[in-house]
Parts: sequence; C-alpha cells; structure tokens
Amino acid sequence: MAGSTYGTIFKITTWGESHGKALGVVIDGCPAGLALSEEDIQKYLNRRKPGASSITTPRKEDDTVEILSGVFEGRTTGTPISLMVRNTSQISRDYSAIAKCYRPGHADYTFDEKYGFRDYRGGGRSSGRETIGRVAAGAVACKILEQLGVKVTAYTRSIGPVTIDYEHFDRDAILNTVTAMPDRNADKKAVEFLNEARSNYDSVGGSMECMVEGLPAGIGDPVFEKLDANLAKAIMSIGAVKAVEIGDGTLVSSRLGSENNDSFRMNGEQVMKNTNHAGGILGGISDGDTVLIRAHVKPTPSIFKPQQTVNADHQEIEIQIKGRHDPIIVPRAVVVMECMTALTVLDAMLINTSARMEYLEHFYGGQ
Amino acid sequence: MAGSTYGTIFKITTWGESHGKALGVVIDGCPAGLALSEEDIQKYLNRRKPGASSITTPRKEDDTVEILSGVFEGRTTGTPISLMVRNTSQISRDYSAIAKCYRPGHADYTFDEKYGFRDYRGGGRSSGRETIGRVAAGAVACKILEQLGVKVTAYTRSIGPVTIDYEHFDRDAILNTVTAMPDRNADKKAVEFLNEARSNYDSVGGSMECMVEGLPAGIGDPVFEKLDANLAKAIMSIGAVKAVEIGDGTLVSSRLGSENNDSFRMNGEQVMKNTNHAGGILGGISDGDTVLIRAHVKPTPSIFKPQQTVNADHQEIEIQIKGRHDPIIVPRAVVVMECMTALTVLDAMLINTSARMEYLEHFYGGQ
Amino acid sequence: MAGSTYGTIFKITTWGESHGKALGVVIDGCPAGLALSEEDIQKYLNRRKPGASSITTPRKEDDTVEILSGVFEGRTTGTPISLMVRNTSQISRDYSAIAKCYRPGHADYTFDEKYGFRDYRGGGRSSGRETIGRVAAGAVACKILEQLGVKVTAYTRSIGPVTIDYEHFDRDAILNTVTAMPDRNADKKAVEFLNEARSNYDSVGGSMECMVEGLPAGIGDPVFEKLDANLAKAIMSIGAVKAVEIGDGTLVSSRLGSENNDSFRMNGEQVMKNTNHAGGILGGISDGDTVLIRAHVKPTPSIFKPQQTVNADHQEIEIQIKGRHDPIIVPRAVVVMECMTALTVLDAMLINTSARMEYLEHFYGGQ
Amino acid sequence: MAGSTYGTIFKITTWGESHGKALGVVIDGCPAGLALSEEDIQKYLNRRKPGASSITTPRKEDDTVEILSGVFEGRTTGTPISLMVRNTSQISRDYSAIAKCYRPGHADYTFDEKYGFRDYRGGGRSSGRETIGRVAAGAVACKILEQLGVKVTAYTRSIGPVTIDYEHFDRDAILNTVTAMPDRNADKKAVEFLNEARSNYDSVGGSMECMVEGLPAGIGDPVFEKLDANLAKAIMSIGAVKAVEIGDGTLVSSRLGSENNDSFRMNGEQVMKNTNHAGGILGGISDGDTVLIRAHVKPTPSIFKPQQTVNADHQEIEIQIKGRHDPIIVPRAVVVMECMTALTVLDAMLINTSARMEYLEHFYGGQ
Repeated sequence: MAGSTYGTIFKITTWGESHGKALGVVIDGCPAGLALSEEDIQKYLNRRKPGASSITTPRKEDDTVEILSGVFEGRTTGTPISLMVRNTSQISRDYSAIAKCYRPGHADYTFDEKYGFRDYRGGGRSSGRETIGRVAAGAVACKILEQLGVKVTAYTRSIGPVTIDYEHFDRDAILNTVTAMPDRNADKKAVEFLNEARSNYDSVGGSMECMVEGLPAGIGDPVFEKLDANLAKAIMSIGAVKAVEIGDGTLVSSRLGSENNDSFRMNGEQVMKNTNHAGGILGGISDGDTVLIRAHVKPTPSIFKPQQTVNADHQEIEIQIKGRHDPIIVPRAVVVMECMTALTVLDAMLINTSARMEYLEHFYGGQ
Repeated sequence: MAGSTYGTIFKITTWGESHGKALGVVIDGCPAGLALSEEDIQKYLNRRKPGASSITTPRKEDDTVEILSGVFEGRTTGTPISLMVRNTSQISRDYSAIAKCYRPGHADYTFDEKYGFRDYRGGGRSSGRETIGRVAAGAVACKILEQLGVKVTAYTRSIGPVTIDYEHFDRDAILNTVTAMPDRNADKKAVEFLNEARSNYDSVGGSMECMVEGLPAGIGDPVFEKLDANLAKAIMSIGAVKAVEIGDGTLVSSRLGSENNDSFRMNGEQVMKNTNHAGGILGGISDGDTVLIRAHVKPTPSIFKPQQTVNADHQEIEIQIKGRHDPIIVPRAVVVMECMTALTVLDAMLINTSARMEYLEHFYGGQ
Repeated sequence: MAGSTYGTIFKITTWGESHGKALGVVIDGCPAGLALSEEDIQKYLNRRKPGASSITTPRKEDDTVEILSGVFEGRTTGTPISLMVRNTSQISRDYSAIAKCYRPGHADYTFDEKYGFRDYRGGGRSSGRETIGRVAAGAVACKILEQLGVKVTAYTRSIGPVTIDYEHFDRDAILNTVTAMPDRNADKKAVEFLNEARSNYDSVGGSMECMVEGLPAGIGDPVFEKLDANLAKAIMSIGAVKAVEIGDGTLVSSRLGSENNDSFRMNGEQVMKNTNHAGGILGGISDGDTVLIRAHVKPTPSIFKPQQTVNADHQEIEIQIKGRHDPIIVPRAVVVMECMTALTVLDAMLINTSARMEYLEHFYGGQ
Repeated sequence: MAGSTYGTIFKITTWGESHGKALGVVIDGCPAGLALSEEDIQKYLNRRKPGASSITTPRKEDDTVEILSGVFEGRTTGTPISLMVRNTSQISRDYSAIAKCYRPGHADYTFDEKYGFRDYRGGGRSSGRETIGRVAAGAVACKILEQLGVKVTAYTRSIGPVTIDYEHFDRDAILNTVTAMPDRNADKKAVEFLNEARSNYDSVGGSMECMVEGLPAGIGDPVFEKLDANLAKAIMSIGAVKAVEIGDGTLVSSRLGSENNDSFRMNGEQVMKNTNHAGGILGGISDGDTVLIRAHVKPTPSIFKPQQTVNADHQEIEIQIKGRHDPIIVPRAVVVMECMTALTVLDAMLINTSARMEYLEHFYGGQ
C-alpha cells in the first residue's frame, strides 16, 4: 500500500531508492508565506552525509537538493513543494553476488516476500538513503517551528557502552563531534570503541534522544493521535530503531507512583511541573514542558565478518559483505530523528488551530 | 481534531467518557461474512473488568456490550458495526473537590489547556474506561485473525521488581492469575509486592508483552506504515505506556552487529531465522517469525498519599485522592495491548492483499 | 472498506440499518465549547421524518436522538460526540418475498455481489434511513457555521415538470410546504402532479438546490480537495442523486466565454463579481459570493406497478412491491443535502485555519 | 492543507506549477510487478499536449516524462513511483501586466485570498498544466486496469451547440480528430463553430463523457466512498468542470419511476439490466454494466475581448488578455477525465479485495 506518505495537514510523501536516479519528497500542506531557500534544506541534508572521519563510510554522497515547485519569489506559495536530490555517486557495480542473497539483519528477505522481487542495488528503498526525503521535509518543518518558538534538538546519547554525561551536557558539541554527542569526553571514548569494533569487522549499536523545547501545552489529540503515540510511530519508522521511550521511558515500569508522579507548582503565572518524568506529555497532550524522546538503534547489519544465510533459491550459503558501510548508524540518524520529530510536532500544532470554538470565532469573526 | 479513529481498511472510531451515558466503538470496514455474537466480544471486555481480588478496584463495572448494527443473521454484513456499553455504575458523586484540581500524573491540566475545560467526572475521556471501545473492536479483530491462522497473546511481563521467568512460561496462567502473568510463581510474588505498596497508599509500575504467532512474512508497508511503526503508535496510544520495544528492544543499543544479526537458515522449504532478536520484523515488514512487542507502563497516578499540585485558579494546593483505584494498571491493560496489536496487524494484512499485480490478476482474472 | 467516515478535521462516522436496533453517528473533531442540546439536533431530524401529508409515507418514524458522549454541562468537550436514534417502529414483518429478490433501481443486487449476502429488511444499509446519521451530524455542523456567520439553505427546485419560480423565491415556504419548495404556487402544482403519479402506482423525480451564504473567500484546497469537488462527492453520496451542478452547471457547456465569465468590480472595499455563473467557487476556492449547488434525484425506485426482475437464484420473476413508500425522494432529501453541504464547508473552513504562516504566527505567537 | 494527494491504496500526489522548474507526481501504492516504461506514460501525456491544429494553442509544450524511482528492471517494485516532466518552453516573459490583475473566470483572486499571494506566471498551480501529474499517474492506472480487463474511454460529447450522434459512435475517431469526438461529422461542425468563436475573440464550452467497460459488479463502498460519489469528486476536481452526471444524470429529475428503473433479466448465467439509466452504479456499487460519467466544462476563461475587472490594489480596470490560449478546454481535458476515472476505479478495486471473509481465507489460508 501507500506507505510513503506521512502527516495530516503538513503531509509529506517520500520516494526514491539507494541506486535509482534520484530521491526526494513532496511536501503538501506547507503554510504559505514561509521564506525558503535551497540552503535552508541543504544544511540539514549535509548533517546526514557521510563525513571524512573513521566512523563514517568513505563513500562520497554529494546530496544537492533542488526545489522544483511550491516556492515563488523566495516564499512558499501553499502549493506542493517538490524537493529532489539526484543520485550521482551511486555507481551500479556488479550486484550479482548479493542480488539473490538474504543478508542477515537486512530487509532483503521481507521485501522479496512482500513484493515478489526487489531492487537489490544498495538496499533499494530500504537503504538509509531513503531518509533523504524525510530530512529535506523535516528541514522545512524545523524552520516553521523555529518561527513559532519551538526548537527541536536531537543528539547521540550512547554508543555501545559509552553514554553521555548529562551533568556536562554540551549543546555545541552536537554539530561539532563526529558522534553527534553533546559531550566531548564521551565522543572521544566512543570513537575509540568504534575503531576497535571496526577493526574486528564488527558494528555497534547506540541510542539517541530528541528534545522539543518551547512547545505550548495543548498539542496532541486523544486517543489515537496522542502526541506520544505519533512520535513513537515517527521514530520507530526510522530504519534500525527497535525501541522508543518518552520521558523516563522504561524506567517507569519499576517505579512507585509516589516516585513517578510529577507534582505541579506555579512559576509566576505559569503552571509548571517540579520534575519531568512524563517527558512533557500527559494524556497524549503536551504539558508545556520539554518533550523528550529516546530511541534505541541496532548495530549496522552490514558487517564484514562471514555470516550464515540463505538465498532466494533457498540454498544455505555463507556471505561476506563488502563495500563501504558505517560501523554505527546513530550519528547520521540523529538528524533524521530531529526531522521526524519536527514533522510530527508541527502537524499536531497545525491541527490544533481548530480545537476550540473560541479559536474559530476569533479567526472567522463570530456572530 | 478527530483523534478517535484508528486504521485504514479495518477502521475503528471509539467514543465515550468515564461517567457519560455510554461508551462504544464503530467498526467500519469489517469483512462481510464473519460469524459474530455479543458473547465473542463480551469475553474480551470481561478481561478488562475490575475483579474481586485485592489488586483491582472494588468498583463494580457491569460492562455489557450490545451490537447495534452491522450483524445480520449472526454474520457481519460488511457495513459498520456499532458496539455500545452503557455506563451503569458510574454514580456521579460530588466532584466539586477535584473539578478544578490538576491531579499529578493525570491529564486534567492538559485537557484544560487544549479544550478550555473538561469533563472532570472520573477522568472523562482520559479515563481507562476509554479502552472499552478498543477492546470491543479488538475482540472482532482477534476473531478474524484466528480464522486466518494468526494468534495474538499479551501478558504481564513484570510488576515492580518482579519479572516472569521465561524458562517456565505458563500460557494457561495468563487468563488464570490476577496479574495476567504467565508464571504462577511470579504472580504470587507480584501480589505480595502490590499489597505492600497498597498498604503504603502507593501504586506500582509494570511491563507487558504481546506475541503475534502465525503471521505470514510480507506484512507492513515501508516507509511510514511499517509494521513496527504502527505497533509502536498503537501501543503508545494506550494510557500510561511510556516505552515500546520491538524484539530485543533497548538491548540492541549496547550490542555488536555480530551479536544482533539473526542469521537465516532453511527449515525444510521454509526460510527461518536462527534467532529472533529482530522480533519478527525486518525493514518494517513481518519476516514470518513471532512478532514480539514490549510496553512499559507507569504506576497508577491516583495514589492516596497527599500530593502538591495547583488548581485551575492557579493556586498551589495539597490534594489527597480518594475513591477506588487499582494499585497497578498493567493486568487490566494486557487485553488492551492484545487488542491494539490485533487491530494493527489485521489492518496491515487487509492492505497487503493488493500488494502485487499477480494477486490482483488472480482476484479479478487477468487478461 | 471503511466507507462510512467523512471529513478530515470534523470527521463523522455513520452506522445503522433500516431495521436494525438503532442508527447513529460519531462526530470526531468537533471544536470544544459549542453549546449543544438534543433539541438542536432533533429539529433537523424532524425535517427528514415522514409527515402526515399525501406525499410522504404514512409510516411513523419516531426518530428521537440521544446524545451519548462528548457534551458536558451543555457544551461540547472536543471529544467524540456519539448520537443515536433507536429504531422503534421498524416492525420486522415477513420479508421472505423480497429477501432473495433484486428490486429494480435498488441496491439489492450490488450489495449481494459485493458482500455475498445482505440485510434485506427494508433496504438495510442502503435505506434512506441511513441518512439519519448524516442529518444528526449536519445539525451540529450547521450550528457551528451559523456562529461563524455562514448560512446553509437547501430547498426543492423541481418535482417532475414543476419548477420553482426564482422571481418569487419565498424562503419561508421551504419549511412550511410539504414539498420544501420556496414557492407556494409551485408547491401546489407539484402536489397535484405527485398525487396523479401516486394514483398511477408510479413515482417521480426531482431536483434540489443548496445555497451557502456568508462563506468567506479562500475556502477549499486545490487540486483534489477543491471545495466544488468535495461538494460534488458529498451530494452524489446521497442515495438517488445522479447529477451535481455548481453554479450554472450544465449550462456552461453551451456558452461562450464572454457570456460565462463573471467580471469583477469593487463594492466599497470589497471585491465582488457582477454575476455568479461560477456559483461562488473559482479554481476550487470560495470567492466570497453565494455558493450554489444543484442535485438531480431519481424517482423513488419502489413503485407499485408490476416489474420484471431476477432473484438471487437467478430466476426471472415478476415482482409487485408493497409497503409504504414516498412517491418522491426530494422533499425529505433536502435536509440531507443541507447537512452534507454544511459538513463539507465546515471541514474546509477548519482546515483553512493553518493556510498561511501569518495565521500560525498570530495563533502561536511568532518570533 | 494538503490537497494534492488522491486515493487510498493507489495514492497519488501531484506537484508543480505552469512556469516552475518541473511538474510531476508520486504514485504510492502501485502493486509490484507491473511492466512499466516511460513510453507507457508518454503516450497519455501526448494526448494532452497542444497540437498543431487551429483549435489548440500554438504553444509548444515538449512534455517528456522521466521515471525517477519505483521501477526496476522494467517492473514496478511496489515502492513509490516518481514521475517528472521538466518545463522547457515556459519562457518567463514580462508578467507585470497581469501579476496584480484578477482575470475573470480564473483563480487569481481566490488564490490571493487563500494564500496571501500567488505565483502569477501562467496561472501557477491553477494552470491546466497541473493535470500533467494526473495524466502521468492515470496512465499507470489505465495500464493496470487493462490487465484486469477494465477499459476506460473518454471522449468529447459536445462543443457549443454541436453534439455527437450516438447512432454513429465511431470509437476510432476519438484519438484521430482534433476535437476528440467519436463522430467525424460532428467534429467537422465543431471545428467550424470553434473557428468562428475564435475569430470573434471568444471561447466555447463543451461536454465530455467517460465509459468504464468490463468493471465487475461489487466495486464501491457505501455510504461515503460510493463509486459515483468518488467519480463525482474526481471529475469535478478537474479545472473548469461545473457539472457531473452519472448515467442519465439530470434527465432523471423529470422522469417517472416506471421510466427510470432498469429491470433485471438473465443473460445465460449472468444477471443483466435491460437498460442502463443508472449508468452502471446502484447504491454506490458497480452493477457489472458500463459505468457512464458526463462532465460539463466551461469555456476557456482567457478570451481576447476586453473585460472589466479589478486588481490587487482594488482598482477597477479593463484588461485584454494576450498570449496563446485554446478556444476550448474539452478536447485536451478528455484524457484527464479518462485518467481521473481510471485512478478512482482502480483504487476502489484494490480496496475491494478485502471485502469478504472468504476472500481473506482464500488469500491467507483459512483455518
């Protein structure tokens, strides 16, 4: 089915495969009048590009975005915004070795079972390159949110056994470390751990977090379009994510109610919580506090050790994956998490503008 | 916005508040020809009713379902199935004490912020009674799935510090213990722990799991309608759930790729995985193995200890909640998890029937 | 599939069959804070009830609506509003004569082909009683629109050869004639024509129109959610409607451009059109003028003359329909047209509140 | 809002403006395994291109389609198909004369009212070039339908006062006359009429029809997703269409029931109707007969006579439109009607594959 469309009012449709001609996204429902340039989008795409460091693939991906429609004289017109990135460096080499092979941890087998065959070049639609469309659209969502006073920030929380130290949270480090960790000390240790795994022909898992700051209370729609439910879907839809937590997440299951409840107090005229175990969401609706989401990401399934598997002819075989693969997914997935969060929050905010009769009477003029 | 509708082909719309006249659900898109009686649904509703044991509320909820439409001569007609449960024991007592109070851990504040006011009787729409509609619809989904060879089973995994022993997994115990644990020993310990918490005027968190057995490979639609993404949304939309895991979940973030990849092998003519860290889903599509979902549930926010909070007039106050409240949410939420999982899986299966041209040619007769 | 849900933000789901236990609708996404009583809805339902006159069925339908959820202390809460009408006078008589018969002009055959069987009592879901849910929901939409300054008015335009005289349009007559014609003279002639057809055991077609007055310019979303496109769907979905026109409708196909274009002029500070051939919609977006929709409705298919047909056993038979049937559909369908129009216009207005960045910056406070 | 997405299972999203960089469509939910080439699509696009005859604009539009994703080794993969047409001949000339002018019959005013400003070059998104995406997607839908035995054929029915003679319906003429009329005699007369109007600086309205042959009974979903309701929306969403009829359409409103009912008979083992006043749809579900839809299209609003209007500064002005404009819309809109019909019918057919339990048990294997 149609599974590549996301959102109700701010609706995006992504397309493209790893080694096809291009990848892209159509944003439908973007409010008119937003100043928007290719540079606004390019800077987000650059964050998901492989870098030059030892922990990312030496592959060169020159992902240059082109705005094809929906922007006139520098502003969005309210009509669909089509964004495209041409594939330039995806040289189609000889794929005969893997065309019929089911790589462990990959979607080769399940795509074949669903569709009868698959585009086997570089993972096709199940490649990480699929996220180009998400990030291009998310860049636009982030720009709108910033103009509405909402800031979305994602970062790496842990790589293998190395976890950031929240006591020394360094926001500047996120965009300036190869791990996207907000902690330069953890970054250093993580790189060491990654290099060791890499030299063992292995890969590493990790976790990432995303904060939404400045979100007003009242966003999210019970009972199925709760803000946390939609965030869980958005983040779980990112390849390799296997768990999503809101606020204190898994910790709540071993807590007492008296420990876990966030008591309310006044801060001047503002209702606040003394703690934020809830992660900024109560009953599926934002409470005005920082929304916090955490995701756990599996290790890159492409490892260079020999692995047992089967092929499409149902023969048991041994494979040894070659090519250029990151030893960890998380650092490049951080911007994807940020973008999926932004898309989700923005859509909920747009929907919320008609939640009360008084809003409508104000907008249209009551009688 | 309209947040009470779930599903694309098998679409449900729930309605009703804790202390309103009734609660219910409309199931739209149920395939025609399913044998269906009120008893099929009632047995699921009975699983979420409070029981007589010490760990559930002594409240009596006589939740009797009535089929109002969509079933004729014992079979579904393909038209909307309306199911209703009248509220009979929700005596509207004096709510003046809590009408303007924001209870910690509850959605009182966020509903007020979103809608301008709220139905404060018993939590209104944010009450656990909201799940009656989910369970009634889920019972129908489960019946269809069983006829298609798919079995959905949820159970309590942990209560506070007490976790089930998978070595002695006892499926019969799920419906025959007050905790819904598949382990009678753990059940006993958990009840002790709960009684202690209860006597301290406190409540307890826990976790639950759901298995989907017999699901064919190929179900789920990349990239936003992935099976795991929709399951995450479905389960996170249940009140009090704060984390959702698929397969090994949070564990993957500290693993190596060589540990986490599930290698493939042949089992006769059938492709199988040697392990199931992935939880039966690869690239968002079912792989034929058991799908496993885990959810972490916060402690009941209604505790009997005094708590600091504020009211709608923005005064800081102390409240002491009274009434009848379970000390734990999980055992009664297990059937809700089972139902939300069934609804999600069934909808994905219905969508999948048009995934390939060969399916359509077979269905309509090709040229 | 799920075909009983309509709308994006103001979303309704109708359910129920002619001779089932009840019929109803769930309204999801109604803005919070609307004063709403059962009387508000009942007065619309009463307009579709059969009356005592010769042109409507002598059937007694005591359609009393009950609000089951979503209204608290006289105001909508923003949560789903469940409305139900119990079937009380639908005595299930002996249907064996028609259970297997395919009545000409009815949906008996197509329901059997689609679903494999059908609820044959009184037309089941394809009965005109299905519109109870539409009208109950539409009554709420109309009330909201009125508070926003938008007035929706439908009426009978023609019955057989008798057409209203627009020169003597009498708005008061709509609710005070048995034909719902805004012209008492035409009403009188139409009744005569109907009585004649009735005495010949025949039925009569007719047409109806709906005006939307006070709608601001800017409503409707190109290119598939154009206001006229959605109105066409809404009105064509009413049973027995076979054509829908906007503005001058079918006349435009024989016009010259110089005749059909509506030139603009200023009316004080307000842009206006000198004529309204367009029916208030340009490019799928309202232009501030009155929106005009026209629908053509086939004669009641239940006629008392003998007819040739076949049965489910594929035998050619002759049937003679008995029972209580209106000789014309239009007068009771007028309120349905009004309601479907209101639902469509309101949903488009709710969606429009996020069309521009400046709206959002005003709502959320810009940076 | 997001108004550029159409369809539930076979879902398309169109984008692009008249004078932007490109136009296109993303098809999401196309069944896997369809043989598809650019030539399959190009031949439909060529039908909407302006030709060399006197009745179409002398504008050269070299609309060459490129498949950017979703097709691998000549077959659809089940993932999104992105199709793009670069704008090559849309030279941006000096638009200062019309940038602020509201042309009568165009959407200039309403776009400004909705979005605050507009892309004024060549009509922007409200240009007829918007239909490129519809046609490209419709070409794919038509190819699938043909493989399932369903044939969709649209043609011009009338131009001004000239209507085709059904007695001499000449299917070959549709693609071989400049008017797309299935009647060479009418074509000749219509061209004369058009040339006369053209020499008077005027334009002409017309009507078109679409037949769906070979559609099995049972397609369409009551009560809001009825086949006729969705066709009405699909066709009314085409720019300049002001009325949509199904079967005998407007004629039914002046008929008697005994005239309008289609009686059933047997044709061998097949249930048939003796007549087809209903246009192949009963109760919103296909009845196995030919589906017939008729649309009335207004004259091209761009005429070369001087017209009164206002500008964005709210001054009353006179304009005289220049440039290259067809004197009639219909002949080039015929393929658009064919494509919108195909998209609607195909989507309903895909949805129908899960309408009965027996279908599902057959597909998944029952228990």
